[in-house]
Amino acid sequence: MWNQVKQPTLLLDEQKCRANIKKMFEKAQKHNLQFRPHFKTHQSLEIGRWFKEAGVEKITVSSLQMARYFAPEWKDITVAFPVNILEIDSIHQLSKDIQLNLLIESAETLLFLKQNLQNSIGFFIKIDVGTKRTGIDPDNIVLIDEILKLSQTSEKLHFKGFLAHTGHTYSCHNKACIIEAHQKAQKLLQELKANYQKEYPNLMISYGDTPSCSLVDDFSGIDEIRPGNFAFYDWMQHKISSCKIEEIAVAMACPVVALHPERNEVVLYGGAVHFSKDFILDESGTKTFGQVIQKTENGWTSNPQKAYLKKLSQEHGILSVPDKEISQYKVGDVICILPIHSCLTANLIKSYQTLDGKEIQMM
Amino acid sequence: MWNQVKQPTLLLDEQKCRANIKKMFEKAQKHNLQFRPHFKTHQSLEIGRWFKEAGVEKITVSSLQMARYFAPEWKDITVAFPVNILEIDSIHQLSKDIQLNLLIESAETLLFLKQNLQNSIGFFIKIDVGTKRTGIDPDNIVLIDEILKLSQTSEKLHFKGFLAHTGHTYSCHNKACIIEAHQKAQKLLQELKANYQKEYPNLMISYGDTPSCSLVDDFSGIDEIRPGNFAFYDWMQHKISSCKIEEIAVAMACPVVALHPERNEVVLYGGAVHFSKDFILDESGTKTFGQVIQKTENGWTSNPQKAYLKKLSQEHGILSVPDKEISQYKVGDVICILPIHSCLTANLIKSYQTLDGKEIQMM
Repeated sequence: MWNQVKQPTLLLDEQKCRANIKKMFEKAQKHNLQFRPHFKTHQSLEIGRWFKEAGVEKITVSSLQMARYFAPEWKDITVAFPVNILEIDSIHQLSKDIQLNLLIESAETLLFLKQNLQNSIGFFIKIDVGTKRTGIDPDNIVLIDEILKLSQTSEKLHFKGFLAHTGHTYSCHNKACIIEAHQKAQKLLQELKANYQKEYPNLMISYGDTPSCSLVDDFSGIDEIRPGNFAFYDWMQHKISSCKIEEIAVAMACPVVALHPERNEVVLYGGAVHFSKDFILDESGTKTFGQVIQKTENGWTSNPQKAYLKKLSQEHGILSVPDKEISQYKVGDVICILPIHSCLTANLIKSYQTLDGKEIQMM
Repeated sequence: MWNQVKQPTLLLDEQKCRANIKKMFEKAQKHNLQFRPHFKTHQSLEIGRWFKEAGVEKITVSSLQMARYFAPEWKDITVAFPVNILEIDSIHQLSKDIQLNLLIESAETLLFLKQNLQNSIGFFIKIDVGTKRTGIDPDNIVLIDEILKLSQTSEKLHFKGFLAHTGHTYSCHNKACIIEAHQKAQKLLQELKANYQKEYPNLMISYGDTPSCSLVDDFSGIDEIRPGNFAFYDWMQHKISSCKIEEIAVAMACPVVALHPERNEVVLYGGAVHFSKDFILDESGTKTFGQVIQKTENGWTSNPQKAYLKKLSQEHGILSVPDKEISQYKVGDVICILPIHSCLTANLIKSYQTLDGKEIQMM
């Protein structure tokens, strides 16, 4: 397998990926949760079919463009991003063909949809449970009520419930921190549900983020989960304790193009246009753009090496290698690296190479 | 123009871009320099033709893949990246069709080429003038001599000269720092040239980086320049004083999707998959992922606004907006933003929209 790698290549361990999907699907079943995985991580119709084979029927995406890509094979899609009203034509087209669910966080956007929709859509009110990226503060009952009231006089707007993403779990460094963020978010959502359930008996709480969904065992009050990254995981997920190394299903394969033993560095063909510039900053201020992992004949082990990607420019990646190991590297070697953020790496590489040599395309 | 923007769009001011190309071309002529612009910034055959119309005949690229893309229209290409010996088939193919120049920084790689080349190539020895990314230390005469000696017994390896990239100018914050880095690099290269010119009377000094080429007026000893970013420039180039704001030829147009006046934030459709995660860190520790610029009816002014991109996730961009201005923003507006690093932004968006509505494709 390794001698087929000529350029930076994103390897996908299909077995690990399918196992991750199965595990999360079963966890959702066990907790009586609807499972609506986020497809922004893999962005691939073919990998989407692995979810379908596991029993998944509904999905989440992060743009209307991505919804259009998946619509031929998925008939119930939530776009987990604030509605971009400039793409109303895309909303018309999608809502004709599929069950389209959108996110609302302002009266202005709801009013715009009310006046312009051609077909029915479902909508979730986006709640900010502490990430401070998007969403309505759960205490802002005035705004929530205004949105709900405006929607009641529309035949095309169907309130589905409240949706939240506990994205601040990504700032955690351990399980306890993730659990705590989850519990706070859960409590806010349970209270909202209790307040509105009388009027909307079918309202759902839709909940996301891979760290929470991976680690938590109490989902009471939650009706649906939308993790995405869990299908691949990555080095960042491992570092925040959201997955085991052996669950990481993607790795980059990069050729060695130059050696600098005088400064313990190896230069790889593999840079910012392959990995993305996401990095992990540790307590000592060291940046890691990717983690070298030991190769096997047909994949990789769960043994992280001491070498790591310390710097990236457009096409160059600079590996920091321990003094004792530098002599083992030579030009033409292929190095196996766990990416920091698999979603961004996949988005750049635009295709996957499975361990049995299959090429899988993305949108 | 603005009402045609529905999604994150990379706008290209063709006039500014052509003016940047013309200015650098004339500067090269004035200083008797060969001009071999780096095409990794725009990665577009169509924009490449603007260079051809300005008189450019030779180009630089950053990968063999990019060389293959440009080879149908460009017959003299330097791949300014250490040779990836795993792509020898690509080298065979390219060297059959065009004058291909490669970068050597080790005896191992040269030996590999010597044993495997099917056709003639030119090669430059890559010299490290202080960036510490790739290249041979100019004092390492032993290695330089070894490479040259090995190449002399090959009919296919033609030594062209020494090539350097003063990439550490990107760490500068003012013109004086850039000039100083340039002068140190220039001195090292002049000495090398003096040492080897007797034996190789036609040897060239090939020199790169947009900040130096933009600001410097003394190129003595240098024979060729290879800047790339100058065709577009960007907010980072402006901040290190390498260009004027009015020379920046690309800008992102992004829709507003949500408002958070309670924390002076505006949420844009435009995230890490559009801008890249490159940022500028200022003295106070503030990160800027993009700079808001005032729009005109058909382009943008050179007036930077106080608003800037403070945070990016996959599809979300968070604008920090001054208290007094936040009420001017509304959902559905299109915001114009100068990217931090135009090369990485262009590489993600994969197409350009000119101000007169033309769509230009990339590789």
